[in-house]
Amino acid sequence: MLKPYFKDQDGPPPLKAACRRVVRLEEVDALGIVWHGRYPSYFEDGREELGRRFGLGYTAFSAVGVILPIRRLTVDYLSPLKYLEEMTIEADLHWNEAARLNIAYRVFGADGRLAASGATVQMMVDTDGGLLLEAPAFYRDFQARWREGRL
Amino acid sequence: MLKPYFKDQDGPPPLKAACRRVVRLEEVDALGIVWHGRYPSYFEDGREELGRRFGLGYTAFSAVGVILPIRRLTVDYLSPLKYLEEMTIEADLHWNEAARLNIAYRVFGADGRLAASGATVQMMVDTDGGLLLEAPAFYRDFQARWREGRL
Amino acid sequence: MLKPYFKDQDGPPPLKAACRRVVRLEEVDALGIVWHGRYPSYFEDGREELGRRFGLGYTAFSAVGVILPIRRLTVDYLSPLKYLEEMTIEADLHWNEAARLNIAYRVFGADGRLAASGATVQMMVDTDGGLLLEAPAFYRDFQARWREGRL
Amino acid sequence: MLKPYFKDQDGPPPLKAACRRVVRLEEVDALGIVWHGRYPSYFEDGREELGRRFGLGYTAFSAVGVILPIRRLTVDYLSPLKYLEEMTIEADLHWNEAARLNIAYRVFGADGRLAASGATVQMMVDTDGGLLLEAPAFYRDFQARWREGRL
Repeated sequence: MLKPYFKDQDGPPPLKAACRRVVRLEEVDALGIVWHGRYPSYFEDGREELGRRFGLGYTAFSAVGVILPIRRLTVDYLSPLKYLEEMTIEADLHWNEAARLNIAYRVFGADGRLAASGATVQMMVDTDGGLLLEAPAFYRDFQARWREGRL
Repeated sequence: MLKPYFKDQDGPPPLKAACRRVVRLEEVDALGIVWHGRYPSYFEDGREELGRRFGLGYTAFSAVGVILPIRRLTVDYLSPLKYLEEMTIEADLHWNEAARLNIAYRVFGADGRLAASGATVQMMVDTDGGLLLEAPAFYRDFQARWREGRL
Repeated sequence: MLKPYFKDQDGPPPLKAACRRVVRLEEVDALGIVWHGRYPSYFEDGREELGRRFGLGYTAFSAVGVILPIRRLTVDYLSPLKYLEEMTIEADLHWNEAARLNIAYRVFGADGRLAASGATVQMMVDTDGGLLLEAPAFYRDFQARWREGRL
Repeated sequence: MLKPYFKDQDGPPPLKAACRRVVRLEEVDALGIVWHGRYPSYFEDGREELGRRFGLGYTAFSAVGVILPIRRLTVDYLSPLKYLEEMTIEADLHWNEAARLNIAYRVFGADGRLAASGATVQMMVDTDGGLLLEAPAFYRDFQARWREGRL
């Protein structure tokens, strides 16, 4: 049993998104299973789906001069995915008061087994590279609606 | 200050290897810095250099019917690498009694700054996919020499 | 005006398939446009869609001991694709009497402009690596139905 | 026998560069051979070595506001490369009067066999995306020295 990637904080439940993707030939290794280094791309698909669904994509932040570099990535590999297998990628944005995005991921194989899980931590940085101590206004508004269950 | 990826055990110091690599155009994103998902490849270069140097590569294990799936990957991103920047990748194999390989990584930019660090944990698995409880004989011999400082 | 990739032979019109794909962050370079080396992956998505639609995928051939190595790839780059742009990939299998697959591709941007076109030529090879002079029976049956307009 | 990628023009012989690279695990497919879509990266290594050797890299051109988009890529696959195989990549810049770079490539396996060959054609474009009819001054000077054998 894996420990949760983020401690539950005193806040609303995570925001969730999911998408699907089929394993490409270029993604499998000589053993016919997905090379471990492809999972950051799978997680990114989930993260972008979260962004699309809730208006939190890279472009929403860059429009206000904020970029979202990844500070930490963790991947736990549980069961390999195979060529042509259709996976489901789930991404959960966890509540956090700080100017950061904490996202947990689960990748499921075609038969529903958990293939991998993981997490990313993203900081908010201005265009000069300075770390933001406070999230931009649009995101604080978003957080207020999230906390109040108005999303 | 990052916490160490592996707790020091009662054993010999880590085995070390290093290699160099130049950032390719295909590895940088629209901001001109390396996309975070490339670092598993950088770590792999370090891991393979360890394998070459100490005779512990994938082929050494597969010759005795053992594969080395990665069970966990962690990457901490500290300072982005840029196009054409020459990095130095260091990989340290940490002592461990179990049938696993614990490797920590550091990637340094051309100016010597720490760009990223991280770790992988690899299990030892037989060709039927069964987890080995004991490392293959050649690796236990290797461990004996390592412990005795005879490498 | 580009010349056609394959000369029209005395045979039925090409078989067509199409799919969509969104440009990922990892696919764009420092100029914010797709790195030229990603297009083989885009073409492959079109080729696999052809395979799915007509039962001609890698697995259909490998089931009868035939692999389909690519012998030649050509890509013409006309207008760059951008991050998050949704492309349409079209793949046309051109009629050919020989034991080979001749496929032409067109990649269209979200606004319908032609972003790239190209072609692949695949040979048929047995598991010993020997070039087949004649396609496997299932594919010759398929060709017969194709020629007779019974697909 | 492959036809030459570029017709010999009335000019000096090609400029040549070469580099080495080892096949990474992530580059091979389920058959244990390099996936065909990796060769643009191999060619790029050769092209960048040409750039370094003769002062013709992306940065030399971008310093005078010129970018070098690839207009056409061709790859001929002759013999597959395997995991860990060390290849030699040769890149030849062919003489051309126009504002374009015509480069031919050869990739050799560890045993000296020709694994693949190919070509790229690059146009010269200004920062507004306009096609240059004349190469920038530094490149015309370079061409003059090339023609006169003074490189």
